[in-house]
Amino acid sequence: MDNAIAIQGIKGSFHHIAAQQYFGNAVALIECLSFDSVVSQLLNKHVDAVVIALENSIAGSIIPNYALIDNNDLYIIGERYLDIQHHLMAMPGQGIQDIQEVYSHPMALLQCKAFFKKHPHIKLIEDKDTAEVAQRIQNGQLKGVAAIASQLAADLFELEILANSIQTIKHNETRFVIVQREKPDFTEAKIDKASLKFELDHKRGSLAAILNVMSDCQLNLTKIQSLPKIETPWKYAFFVDVTFDNYSNFKKARSILEIMAEDFKILGQYKHTK
Amino acid sequence: MDNAIAIQGIKGSFHHIAAQQYFGNAVALIECLSFDSVVSQLLNKHVDAVVIALENSIAGSIIPNYALIDNNDLYIIGERYLDIQHHLMAMPGQGIQDIQEVYSHPMALLQCKAFFKKHPHIKLIEDKDTAEVAQRIQNGQLKGVAAIASQLAADLFELEILANSIQTIKHNETRFVIVQREKPDFTEAKIDKASLKFELDHKRGSLAAILNVMSDCQLNLTKIQSLPKIETPWKYAFFVDVTFDNYSNFKKARSILEIMAEDFKILGQYKHTK
Repeated sequence: MDNAIAIQGIKGSFHHIAAQQYFGNAVALIECLSFDSVVSQLLNKHVDAVVIALENSIAGSIIPNYALIDNNDLYIIGERYLDIQHHLMAMPGQGIQDIQEVYSHPMALLQCKAFFKKHPHIKLIEDKDTAEVAQRIQNGQLKGVAAIASQLAADLFELEILANSIQTIKHNETRFVIVQREKPDFTEAKIDKASLKFELDHKRGSLAAILNVMSDCQLNLTKIQSLPKIETPWKYAFFVDVTFDNYSNFKKARSILEIMAEDFKILGQYKHTK
Repeated sequence: MDNAIAIQGIKGSFHHIAAQQYFGNAVALIECLSFDSVVSQLLNKHVDAVVIALENSIAGSIIPNYALIDNNDLYIIGERYLDIQHHLMAMPGQGIQDIQEVYSHPMALLQCKAFFKKHPHIKLIEDKDTAEVAQRIQNGQLKGVAAIASQLAADLFELEILANSIQTIKHNETRFVIVQREKPDFTEAKIDKASLKFELDHKRGSLAAILNVMSDCQLNLTKIQSLPKIETPWKYAFFVDVTFDNYSNFKKARSILEIMAEDFKILGQYKHTK
C-alpha cells in the first residue's frame, strides 16, 4: 500500500512540492485547509506522515507549528528547504492586460504588493489557498482571472505563467519538516541532525553551559530560538537544531543535556538537507 | 511642544495602549495602517518616536519588524509588555443575540474562533484594523454589528462590552518597543537592558564562546533568536536581549563582543519593564 500523507493546502501547493521531494509521487495525498487539520489526520491515523512548514527566511519560526509538534509529541523524520517563488498564472492565450482580478492568499498578495502597484488595473481579492485558485480557474475555464501560485500548480492545472517570481523579496526560503506520530527505527549512521527542545531557568550562564556541552561534543548549532513561558515568569523554552558528523557524539551530548536541562526532549532525528 | 508619536493602527489599538503607558496622554498620535508607514513617519521626521510590536507569546518574534529597526538603523529606547485581551463590543443596549455581524482583523477573528463557534448566528467579516471597526460602529451608530477590540477602544468609542476576553488562548503577551531615529543621551545608571545583533560563522562553539563572555560579564540572556542569512550560506545573524545590574559590566562585555562577533550592533539600550 502507498503511504498516505497529509499536507496543508491542495495539490500544487508548496507543501505538495516538499512532500513530492521527500516521498516522490507514489503517495496518496490528503489535502487539508489548516495545520490543525493536518495534525488531526495524523493523530487519527488517517495518514502515516504529514508535511509542515516550520520556518521561513522572511518571518522566522512558525511558533504555532512548533507547538503542534511539541504538544502532540510528534516526531520529525526529515526536512526539505524550498525557495518559494510566486508566479502569476491564467488560462492560456491571455496577456497581463486581459487580467481584471487576482485571487490569492492574503500573505501571497502582500508578498507581491510591489508587482501589482505597477498593474493598477488588476483588482486583488483575498482567498483561502494559492493553488486552489489555480485549480478553480482551470475547472471553470475562467478568463480575465489569474492566480498567484507555484510552477507545479501551473503544470498541474495547465495554466500559462504571465509573470515569473513576482514576489517583492526575491529569496524566501522555507523549511518544511516531515512528521510522524512516533520515533521510527533508524540507522544511526544515516542521522546527522536533531531538533531539540529544553527549558532553562533565568540563571546567568545556564544557556552558555548547555552550548558549551554541545560544542565540546562536536555538535554544530544551526538554529536557536528562545520562547518565554508566560505562565512561568523567568523560565524559557529553547528550540535548538544541531548537526553532527558522528552519531555517538550526539548520544554523548544527549546524555549530559538530559541531566543539565529541564524537560529535555528530542523533537526529531533525521538527515539534514542543507 | 508635545512629542509626536506614530503607531500602527488607530486610537484604541494595542499600540495606542503601549504608547499611552510609555508616554502618557500628552503626545500627538499619528495613526498608520502599516509598520512600513510607521517607520516612514519616523524617517521623514514627522514624528519623534514610534511604537512597534516586536514579539508575542503565541507567534514569537515579528522578524519583519526587527528588520525595519535594523535596516533603518533605528534605536530602541524602551519597551512595554501588554497582556492582549480581546473583547466583543457593540452599541449599548444590545445583547449578543442581537449581533449579526462581527468585523475584525483576520488575526483577531482567528484567535477568537472557538468563541464564535458557540454563536453560529454571527457572521464573521475580515477587516483592516480592530479598533477602527469600533470607531466606525460609534460614528455610524450601527446596530447589530460588533467589533473585537481592546478595553481602551470600548472606552474611547463608548461601546458596551458584550463578552470579555473572548480569545481562545487566554494569555497572549505582546512586547512593544519604543523606537527613535538615533541613540539618545542617557544616564548609564538608568539602563539595565540592551538589544543586540551580531553575526557568526557556522563554526562549532562560536555562539557558546559569545555566551560565555556574556555570562562572565554578569549579563543575563532574556531572548535569543538565530536567523540564517540566506544570501550567505552557513552564516547566521543573532538577535539577543540581555539584562544587567551594572552598566559597567555591559560596557566590558560590549568591548569584547565587538572584537569577537562580526557586525556587532546595539539595537537599543533602555530600562527593562519585565
